[in-house]
Amino acid sequence: MKKPSHKSALSQSNSIPASANVSSTSAERIKSLRKKKQDHTAILNNLLQGNQTALGKAITLVESNNTQHQQQASAIIEGAIASSGKSIRIGITGVPGVGKSTFIEAFGTYLLGLGKKVAVLAVDPSSSISKGSILGDKTRMENLVKEEMAFIRPSPSGDSLGGVARKTRESIMLCEAAGFDVILIETVGVGQSETTVHSMCDFFLLLKLAGAGDELQGIKRGIMEMADAIVINKADGENMKAANTAKLDFKRALHLYPAKESGWTPQVLLSSALYNEGILEIWDLIVSFEKKTKENGYFKENRKQQSKFWLLQSINEQLKQSFYQNPEIKTALEEQLQAIFDKKTSPFIAAQYLLEKYAKL
Amino acid sequence: MKKPSHKSALSQSNSIPASANVSSTSAERIKSLRKKKQDHTAILNNLLQGNQTALGKAITLVESNNTQHQQQASAIIEGAIASSGKSIRIGITGVPGVGKSTFIEAFGTYLLGLGKKVAVLAVDPSSSISKGSILGDKTRMENLVKEEMAFIRPSPSGDSLGGVARKTRESIMLCEAAGFDVILIETVGVGQSETTVHSMCDFFLLLKLAGAGDELQGIKRGIMEMADAIVINKADGENMKAANTAKLDFKRALHLYPAKESGWTPQVLLSSALYNEGILEIWDLIVSFEKKTKENGYFKENRKQQSKFWLLQSINEQLKQSFYQNPEIKTALEEQLQAIFDKKTSPFIAAQYLLEKYAKL
Repeated sequence: MKKPSHKSALSQSNSIPASANVSSTSAERIKSLRKKKQDHTAILNNLLQGNQTALGKAITLVESNNTQHQQQASAIIEGAIASSGKSIRIGITGVPGVGKSTFIEAFGTYLLGLGKKVAVLAVDPSSSISKGSILGDKTRMENLVKEEMAFIRPSPSGDSLGGVARKTRESIMLCEAAGFDVILIETVGVGQSETTVHSMCDFFLLLKLAGAGDELQGIKRGIMEMADAIVINKADGENMKAANTAKLDFKRALHLYPAKESGWTPQVLLSSALYNEGILEIWDLIVSFEKKTKENGYFKENRKQQSKFWLLQSINEQLKQSFYQNPEIKTALEEQLQAIFDKKTSPFIAAQYLLEKYAKL
Repeated sequence: MKKPSHKSALSQSNSIPASANVSSTSAERIKSLRKKKQDHTAILNNLLQGNQTALGKAITLVESNNTQHQQQASAIIEGAIASSGKSIRIGITGVPGVGKSTFIEAFGTYLLGLGKKVAVLAVDPSSSISKGSILGDKTRMENLVKEEMAFIRPSPSGDSLGGVARKTRESIMLCEAAGFDVILIETVGVGQSETTVHSMCDFFLLLKLAGAGDELQGIKRGIMEMADAIVINKADGENMKAANTAKLDFKRALHLYPAKESGWTPQVLLSSALYNEGILEIWDLIVSFEKKTKENGYFKENRKQQSKFWLLQSINEQLKQSFYQNPEIKTALEEQLQAIFDKKTSPFIAAQYLLEKYAKL
């Protein structure tokens, strides 16, 4: 820092005194802070009144990696949280080609007809890599996107599923605070993305095609086990016979799983999103799920457990991040790994050494 | 500390001067430390010469939760590590009733006949709860237990799989340093125990019964995917036909999995441990696995990756433990959870708050 002039700040001079300079900067900073505060207060207020532009802005702040934006996002979320939680959160998954977009378009349009406000979000950790991703192209839901009571938001880009998940979960809260009653969370099966969506929704819907032969994959990856309903899509025309057979097969497969904690027995339904068939039955099913689980207390308990899960998950991720991204630890970790490979130490002794080093930093 | 007497330590007196007292205590402490050092140096030296009593003592130190014992254990492991790593580590799993003990008895006895030194360890996180556990009753391997070249050790008791795993993995090193060439690591399928054993062995063997109908379980829990060989046990007498059918079924099921990183194609074999049939073929298979994976570099690379996995695993576990076991954090965590349930904060904001609190402690 430059040494201050010995001249008194009160003395008259042509040059602008330092103190004046400082106070004008402070004033600007305060003004700018006030403006930001006004900004996010305005966003919050408009969002709480159901304004979609404000909702979009708030989600943009949530998705930003900029520290200042994140602070504003936190302030908005804190203000929105008391008004959140009133929707039904429905997770929808299925392999590419199963017709997720067409299904969501048909399902969402049906819900709008019932007077619901519908938000569609997506979890797709691959979107930052592949670019062209689910919901990335809004025109795939061309009717829904035009509706005033529908809000569609593509998957936030992010390099980790954890990051994408956090952003989506906060976006759910914001949509709810903005008055959306049904939140559809779409995911394509990449890595652990179905498990992630399952841990933030109330009802998990698995879209299937008849005779696709991916049953083993579903069992293997534990996806079928998570489903509250399996919907066999494209059950129309020549597909009908195969769809009915698949329905029986899936029903039998579901019987192999133990009873769900929710007390709900997963159902298998048919639909043709293209011809708008079976949509009504799916909504009725979800309504009876909601009724049952609200009565037996599971609905609320599950949301509590999900909140706890996300709290612990965030803590664990950040504990690891602080450790592994520390430059001294990074170097020491490489050295210890080499020592392990050279049979000079064991993984457990090395872990102890690194943790002691970290504690002293 | 008591203020020292003003009398000179050299002055004659009937009462024993404080300083003398102190120095005699120090001397004893030094003597005791020297003794401990001699103790574990003696254990290490005897272990390196293949002494089984020393091996048993060293493993007891590894398994102890006493801090002093753990320090001695670490010193022994550090001294043993350069001599470790020369065995083939074989993981063996299967549901209760599949005949694991009989199989290990037959297989181990065969290996002793080939001049091998065989150690049998177990991973069973339930052993501390259920008491009567696998290998707990050594008499179940009554022939093997009598053999001088065999070493059998029940599962260490421990309340977490992580703890049991660490102890087993260090015991493997000690057995190797004591000259054992084949390490059999048995596990019963409790929770994640198969995955744990898979991450510490070179070859993973899954024992099955014909017509047991637990195929779905194996697929679901990812166990079949880990297997390098599936052995259908009790393939004798009237079971033969069913065993042959099961062999074909499992072969077909294995084809559904993608090729293994090891370049190895998992095989399905029949055995009757009771009649000592099929044992030779299983060993031959393992020998060809070892040859192939040593040639293509997988064997070494896999062990490196396993060491890295255990290093990171230990660090992650201990980072979490330090955080969650901190009394101030414990209280604050409960408060934040309640605030989340009361919709006063979000899981992510609460996580941030707790991590900042932890950093200041």
